[in-house]
Amino acid sequence: MNKIYTSLIETVRADKPLIHHITNYVTVNDCANITLAIGASPIMADALAEAGDIAKMSSALVLNMGTLNESTISSMISAGKVANSNKIPIIFDPVGAGSSALRNKTAALILNELRPTVLCGNISEIKFLTGLESKTKGVDASDNDVSSLAHTQMIAKQLANRFSCIVAITGAVDVVSDGKKVICIENGHPMLDCLTGTGCMCSSLIGSLCGAVKTPLEATVTALLCMGIAGETAFDMAGNKGNGSFHTALHDVISKLNTKTLERKARLYEA
Amino acid sequence: MNKIYTSLIETVRADKPLIHHITNYVTVNDCANITLAIGASPIMADALAEAGDIAKMSSALVLNMGTLNESTISSMISAGKVANSNKIPIIFDPVGAGSSALRNKTAALILNELRPTVLCGNISEIKFLTGLESKTKGVDASDNDVSSLAHTQMIAKQLANRFSCIVAITGAVDVVSDGKKVICIENGHPMLDCLTGTGCMCSSLIGSLCGAVKTPLEATVTALLCMGIAGETAFDMAGNKGNGSFHTALHDVISKLNTKTLERKARLYEA
Amino acid sequence: MNKIYTSLIETVRADKPLIHHITNYVTVNDCANITLAIGASPIMADALAEAGDIAKMSSALVLNMGTLNESTISSMISAGKVANSNKIPIIFDPVGAGSSALRNKTAALILNELRPTVLCGNISEIKFLTGLESKTKGVDASDNDVSSLAHTQMIAKQLANRFSCIVAITGAVDVVSDGKKVICIENGHPMLDCLTGTGCMCSSLIGSLCGAVKTPLEATVTALLCMGIAGETAFDMAGNKGNGSFHTALHDVISKLNTKTLERKARLYEA
Repeated sequence: MNKIYTSLIETVRADKPLIHHITNYVTVNDCANITLAIGASPIMADALAEAGDIAKMSSALVLNMGTLNESTISSMISAGKVANSNKIPIIFDPVGAGSSALRNKTAALILNELRPTVLCGNISEIKFLTGLESKTKGVDASDNDVSSLAHTQMIAKQLANRFSCIVAITGAVDVVSDGKKVICIENGHPMLDCLTGTGCMCSSLIGSLCGAVKTPLEATVTALLCMGIAGETAFDMAGNKGNGSFHTALHDVISKLNTKTLERKARLYEA
Repeated sequence: MNKIYTSLIETVRADKPLIHHITNYVTVNDCANITLAIGASPIMADALAEAGDIAKMSSALVLNMGTLNESTISSMISAGKVANSNKIPIIFDPVGAGSSALRNKTAALILNELRPTVLCGNISEIKFLTGLESKTKGVDASDNDVSSLAHTQMIAKQLANRFSCIVAITGAVDVVSDGKKVICIENGHPMLDCLTGTGCMCSSLIGSLCGAVKTPLEATVTALLCMGIAGETAFDMAGNKGNGSFHTALHDVISKLNTKTLERKARLYEA
Repeated sequence: MNKIYTSLIETVRADKPLIHHITNYVTVNDCANITLAIGASPIMADALAEAGDIAKMSSALVLNMGTLNESTISSMISAGKVANSNKIPIIFDPVGAGSSALRNKTAALILNELRPTVLCGNISEIKFLTGLESKTKGVDASDNDVSSLAHTQMIAKQLANRFSCIVAITGAVDVVSDGKKVICIENGHPMLDCLTGTGCMCSSLIGSLCGAVKTPLEATVTALLCMGIAGETAFDMAGNKGNGSFHTALHDVISKLNTKTLERKARLYEA
């Protein structure tokens, strides 16, 4: 099965799609650099006066709620409407959904007003969106929210059907569904939770893949595969040195990934 | 004396407190990553619409004036009031106080409206707050402001009494006072001044410690001890390579710090 | 000819000029750290309420359009007017000019309202400013815009005359002109395009040099020489490891640069 996915990274590198981000100011530099590392071209632009213009010329739009404010919310809706009417894929990362009324209201607004192609979050955020009780504490998944793998798979499938989009739930095993198929990715490393922005970087990678590849399920799986394998490899290279070296190695590995490495290391299956 | 402090790092790692930051967009990524490296969990949220919500669920609130604007000032006051009424410790870092009317006015506003638990700054910023003449030039301490250690100790003690809080003055020797005791920390390295955000990271570390430890004097001393020892160790590991490697090593060391290392390397005394 | 330029880095290190930036939130941390690495002192301040105050106390002002919004545009004009009337050099980096109406309008506004000392951009941005057709796609130079070196030199010279400033066009060969002389810098490495913010960092280096050196043509050439040589050296040191290590090495090299290294490695000529 792996071959469906592993070659898609070359498509990104050949195509260099422009990926518009309206995202937070905490992890934005890592998002831009990871977008470059995978072979795409990032543009971060959140002013309402240009959000539509930039979305229109881009190959994908990443909406990330990490540091919301009234002004970027309007820009997200504006850019998103342009993306939808131009069939440009939208990746929506509901960072911190469940942890404040503003984030909850904004996530609902985006899901009402826009049709995202991919919805990507941790189990706490996704549970909140499904209306299940969530114990979200901040922007990281709460241990109390971790479900059995079977339950996570069910949530992904149901939510994908409800919003007619790809749903990706990141975690120890990443789960991706289009409402019919459910793909599980076992690659990854716990040390990815020791850096800020690895979730945001997943969304940037999904955006990069969706900007070049027309099949969003495959694009999303490939993106999470890249991050998972990069986490494992970066840990092997530098994990014992500490968080700083692991961070550097993560960017190193993504920039050097190719089909062959992905092929050799991928551990994924259809549930 | 060291043992009072050196074990507190394990309390943070066990407790994983959520640390709310309203901070600048320059060093925010380093602040989030250093918070994770010491074992706490960062959330950066500066919209007025959610500042109170986020503060309420957090274990400490870090207010940093690095890149102020009208909107974040309101959010700081709003989050700070929630923190005060819920007995959540506030760490206030008056970055650049003395260098513009906006910063001076905001520092005064915060000290009037809120009751910070810890006030942490360089000698230029702290001198400005005491009403002493300060030669602040930007966000770094001015050489002209450096006082004798005895004078710095006196300022820390007086200001701690005046604002009924812990005062931490960072510098070649860090000075911390609760208005009675004065603790001096000799650890540190001049190369910490070659990176942006090492002061901001100190405030994040103080927030992380205060979020888990109920005694703010001890928490503050421990946080500065961690940064000082990390600076020394990072210099030994990578300082001769240059600023980039030193930056990476700093995050490495903080993520690997433990009681034993702190015990062995701490150089601090009560004045 | 090299000796005119290569010693200027020591002037920055001795002088430690304060460099005010009104810049984007994507690459701002790299800009601050590169400013420190070359020996200057950065301050990032974009609130209208303090932009003039901060500009007035600074030795140079860097205006970078990377992530514009209505509020920072006003601040740029306000700070710029203070800089102009106090003869403080302004470095203007029209990031993404040509890619949205907001950016185009803002670039025109800045060039109408302010008198920049140095205008620094990639060939797509500069072509847009000259009124030539530009194929800008986002914030990176479009391959379709790359001109012959002779044509690029002509554009630099004409634009320098039109705006009575130094024009720097970054690319495989950097071209700098004051409207009379045209200097070409062959140093550099393609891997600089694999990191976000290397263009922004060039503007910060130009600001750092202009803050300490009274002759802006020489200051600009030296700054681009520093980045070009740092790119080459960082590639030799770490390029094969990947983007993360190259990023770290770039900061390492800039922080260690001295006249001797510049002297040995500089490849520049007057056209």
